[in-house]
Amino acid sequence: MLTIFGDPISGNCLKVKWTAERLAIPYTWRDVDVTKAQSRTPEFLALNPAGQVPTVVLVDGRTLAQSNAIILHLAEGSDLIPADAYERAKMFEWLFWEQYSHEPYIAVARFQVKYLGKPVGELEPRIVERGRAALALMDRALEGRDFLVGGSLTLADIALVAYTRMAADGGFALSDYSAVEAWTRRVEAELPIREPR
Amino acid sequence: MLTIFGDPISGNCLKVKWTAERLAIPYTWRDVDVTKAQSRTPEFLALNPAGQVPTVVLVDGRTLAQSNAIILHLAEGSDLIPADAYERAKMFEWLFWEQYSHEPYIAVARFQVKYLGKPVGELEPRIVERGRAALALMDRALEGRDFLVGGSLTLADIALVAYTRMAADGGFALSDYSAVEAWTRRVEAELPIREPR
Repeated sequence: MLTIFGDPISGNCLKVKWTAERLAIPYTWRDVDVTKAQSRTPEFLALNPAGQVPTVVLVDGRTLAQSNAIILHLAEGSDLIPADAYERAKMFEWLFWEQYSHEPYIAVARFQVKYLGKPVGELEPRIVERGRAALALMDRALEGRDFLVGGSLTLADIALVAYTRMAADGGFALSDYSAVEAWTRRVEAELPIREPR
Repeated sequence: MLTIFGDPISGNCLKVKWTAERLAIPYTWRDVDVTKAQSRTPEFLALNPAGQVPTVVLVDGRTLAQSNAIILHLAEGSDLIPADAYERAKMFEWLFWEQYSHEPYIAVARFQVKYLGKPVGELEPRIVERGRAALALMDRALEGRDFLVGGSLTLADIALVAYTRMAADGGFALSDYSAVEAWTRRVEAELPIREPR
């Protein structure tokens, strides 16, 4: 069976959980508490030298890391990956954009505020500005659309909703981005999300 | 014909150029000088609202951004993407790792030193530490291997070599990472690289 090593406070880890559940892929979840440096133990580093969660051990015993690489692997051949080459490319564009231009601001702000206790007003201005820019870009892209790519749920939505739905934890008001807010509720309704916002 | 909007000082843009050339895909190159904010003009933002290079206009007139999404699209069906599902997943793992754990340190250090004139000794310690950690991780992964994934050149090598080969510009000594250094020369020999290190 698939084993997911993850921390339930991490949106990156939840992406993998939701994708597996959506696709009815059985899995075992193994908690790795990143706030206690459990992803930096010799045992964990033997599994993933980058010391990052999520990391999965596939049915054949081989390991795979990087949330978006894992969900791409799990979803191969499913309708979460568009069949059309251009739509697939746009999905990849969102997946890479998420890791470079969204997660480092939206997820980092949340982590610093919710788990390190930093007041929102003391966040680095660069993090706040770029987080807002990321949400504004999504808001424009989602204007008049139900999903980020094509007409149905893809991995782009799963990857982006993970931290977007928790953006308020880092001081970002989703109500300022009405298309993003509506899309968030739409994507949540499609996924087996039991985690609180 | 494919149009690549890129800045020749950007490794992310060079990835796209090298992939197109390696695959004999004809293209027109349009210079966008990021140091002169040419990626932030209204004309450019109409092409890519994220204001980032590279951005390409495909033969059918549609646009695509994010270097790794672009090279994935250009290389579809070629031997730069492994046919084996696990090897393909490992290639994705490297592509996402590159954008999250390598580029923000190796490329940013280079940009600050080479283009903003910051002395290497004044780089933020976090950038230096994480850049070194990235090169050390690659060094261990490349021990006894010719390429990052499988036995031949893939997009993982193209994506990672872009800034790795210029790491010295940011104060990182490739000679400290002998497997990375040998791999860099090997990948350079496979690609139509004319840009100086």
